[in-house]
Amino acid sequence: MAAVDPARAVAGLRRIAELTGSDDGAQRVAWTDTWITAREWLRSELDGIAGVSVETDEAGNTWATAPGESERFVIVGGHLDSVPNGGWLDGTLDVVAGLEVLRALAPERRALTLKLVDWADEEGARFGRSLLGSSACSGTLDPEAVRGLTDRDGTALPDALAAHGVELDRMSESGARLRDAIAYLELHIEQGPVLEQLDLPLGAVLGTFGVQRHMVRFTGAHAHAGASPMHLRRDAFLAAARSALAFRDDAAARDDVRATTGIVRVSPGIVTAFNGSCAVSLDQRALQADVLADMLASAKANAARIAAEEGCEVAWERVWEIEPILFDPTLVDLADAAVNEVAATSHRLPSGPLHDAAEMARVMPTVMLFVKSLGGVSHTKEEDTPEADLELSVRALYELTRRTLAWAEEQAAS
Amino acid sequence: MAAVDPARAVAGLRRIAELTGSDDGAQRVAWTDTWITAREWLRSELDGIAGVSVETDEAGNTWATAPGESERFVIVGGHLDSVPNGGWLDGTLDVVAGLEVLRALAPERRALTLKLVDWADEEGARFGRSLLGSSACSGTLDPEAVRGLTDRDGTALPDALAAHGVELDRMSESGARLRDAIAYLELHIEQGPVLEQLDLPLGAVLGTFGVQRHMVRFTGAHAHAGASPMHLRRDAFLAAARSALAFRDDAAARDDVRATTGIVRVSPGIVTAFNGSCAVSLDQRALQADVLADMLASAKANAARIAAEEGCEVAWERVWEIEPILFDPTLVDLADAAVNEVAATSHRLPSGPLHDAAEMARVMPTVMLFVKSLGGVSHTKEEDTPEADLELSVRALYELTRRTLAWAEEQAAS
Repeated sequence: MAAVDPARAVAGLRRIAELTGSDDGAQRVAWTDTWITAREWLRSELDGIAGVSVETDEAGNTWATAPGESERFVIVGGHLDSVPNGGWLDGTLDVVAGLEVLRALAPERRALTLKLVDWADEEGARFGRSLLGSSACSGTLDPEAVRGLTDRDGTALPDALAAHGVELDRMSESGARLRDAIAYLELHIEQGPVLEQLDLPLGAVLGTFGVQRHMVRFTGAHAHAGASPMHLRRDAFLAAARSALAFRDDAAARDDVRATTGIVRVSPGIVTAFNGSCAVSLDQRALQADVLADMLASAKANAARIAAEEGCEVAWERVWEIEPILFDPTLVDLADAAVNEVAATSHRLPSGPLHDAAEMARVMPTVMLFVKSLGGVSHTKEEDTPEADLELSVRALYELTRRTLAWAEEQAAS
Repeated sequence: MAAVDPARAVAGLRRIAELTGSDDGAQRVAWTDTWITAREWLRSELDGIAGVSVETDEAGNTWATAPGESERFVIVGGHLDSVPNGGWLDGTLDVVAGLEVLRALAPERRALTLKLVDWADEEGARFGRSLLGSSACSGTLDPEAVRGLTDRDGTALPDALAAHGVELDRMSESGARLRDAIAYLELHIEQGPVLEQLDLPLGAVLGTFGVQRHMVRFTGAHAHAGASPMHLRRDAFLAAARSALAFRDDAAARDDVRATTGIVRVSPGIVTAFNGSCAVSLDQRALQADVLADMLASAKANAARIAAEEGCEVAWERVWEIEPILFDPTLVDLADAAVNEVAATSHRLPSGPLHDAAEMARVMPTVMLFVKSLGGVSHTKEEDTPEADLELSVRALYELTRRTLAWAEEQAAS
């Protein structure tokens, strides 16, 4: 049995950064030449592993297969694409750690097949649709919803795909590959501050948050800063400010949920008048659908009450929503055990950002591992994780894969 | 004795609107041909009053003089200029009502001289410096502070003045005209909702608010809406929101002051992150200097406490300030009496906006009358006041002028 080589994974990550980064950070944007450079590096590494075959599916996802006695398989996955000026670890760690796990396990005689997948266009950085390759594979991609997307130069999504041999209308055919799949595993940097604050290197991920995203528009009536007495004002910004604080206070009083006001637009927005209108965004996240629904109902009740108290009106417009996606409880236990094995202590936490794993969780038992992000930052060249923690994360993914293969063997047999 | 003719004043206002307005409202912007059209109408009206002489001073202000036995005089003033797309009453009411008062009193034998002044460029609409003509006359205009101002077409202020026969460096010579002045009176629309809310046509003005105007910048650290737990956030917008509410609540708890947050700028201002920085404006107004100073100190203390509680920093930058300008208590009593005479009931109130009267109050006893503004709106074509109230306001200015002439005669004699 070949042991996994975590140092080799770190070297691989540095090599990809060297090949595809600039002074401004990672530039592996999907459907660009730089992305292809990263994928070619992966292909050459895979070509060096005896017995492993490599294919690209109808959605542009790259699959490497280390066959077992059965065609039923466990998947380790990730994505090589990045946002522009991104970090060296977001996505690449998943793939490169998976590569080393595959390299270590390929020579072993196994009952089950092991596959590594490099999903196409997780970030959606060029066309604005994230999880493109994995959603095609899971069956949730609606071609009509993305056909009209264009990049900033006006190139249409279908044309950019075609230039890489991918036909939009055939992408979902990639889903047939999952017929014999038993489980999906993914390692990712946390992209948040939780593990660092707890001084832990690794955690087992419970699932991805559901999201309710709205624009909330308050309408009062603007008037002159000097002429209008305080008690006669209908100040839409103050109604929005009170509401944003109520949204925050409600979330802070619950267990591990989020409520964020990011966009704030006032009108007229001048120094000599208070504002007659104010639109704010509200992004709410929770791991339980009933909690998320209750948060939204509470926010609407708070905004209505506050708007009335401030002499304003309020209107809600849904911008986006997605249900919470919970990972498989058994696999979460295995992930927790793998983390405990390599780091002596573990922590279970939800994922704020979405991941390809959320698409796979719709169609098979799935779990993720998180490794600490320094400062909680990602999508920037400052994104980083200590080398020792990266190595631990590769070992944890290796342990999780071994445990999952053993568990999946039981599943396949039953 | 000729009685004042309020209906003639309303007809004059309608005539000016006809001559100088468009479908978008009043267009009497200072130092433009349309402004000159309005002034020519005034000149032709003045030319029709026997014994009245008309001059333009070094600052471009127009003076009409109805001589008395003494050269010492009382002034009734206003301004014909407007903002672009402005209303039919802002400024013109003051001048046209003053014209009718002058027309009524000119034939009378009087101990004192009566003057009507049409100030040049009260609004500052073209070059951004308001109270230009009156501040030149009062001695507070610094030519160096305005020499570099340009309009949106790049025309320099001194060139626009020169085209109307005004030399910037000689404008302050107009102040010599005030040597024999005893008092200054001005009627204006309220431009606020107070009188309408009280269902009163007229009020006596106590003075103009002092103003403290700052930008208040909160700095935290932005991060991802999903990845960052609520208790680890340093959300600059929420710090600003709480502070803006504290500014408001402090003002609402005091007697007749103002605190307004108009500008709100967040960064990054996107739906998927909370904000690492937020800048808001704070415009505070009060009629007593010590109250204004206390409001500012209170705002700074609140913002510092709230920023610390939210893990943010806060910095203040003063944008502008002006001290409160109180009108003459005796003249306020006379104004109150004049309002009671014509409307049976009166109300004393501060002025939120600045007026030429604030410049005159620096150099002589001054008072203003306010007439109701419908909806409290001005600087828009929707600006309006019922005709009956306009007529009452002309009568009140006439009564106030007679009372002030009588009082000034005593002053001149003593």
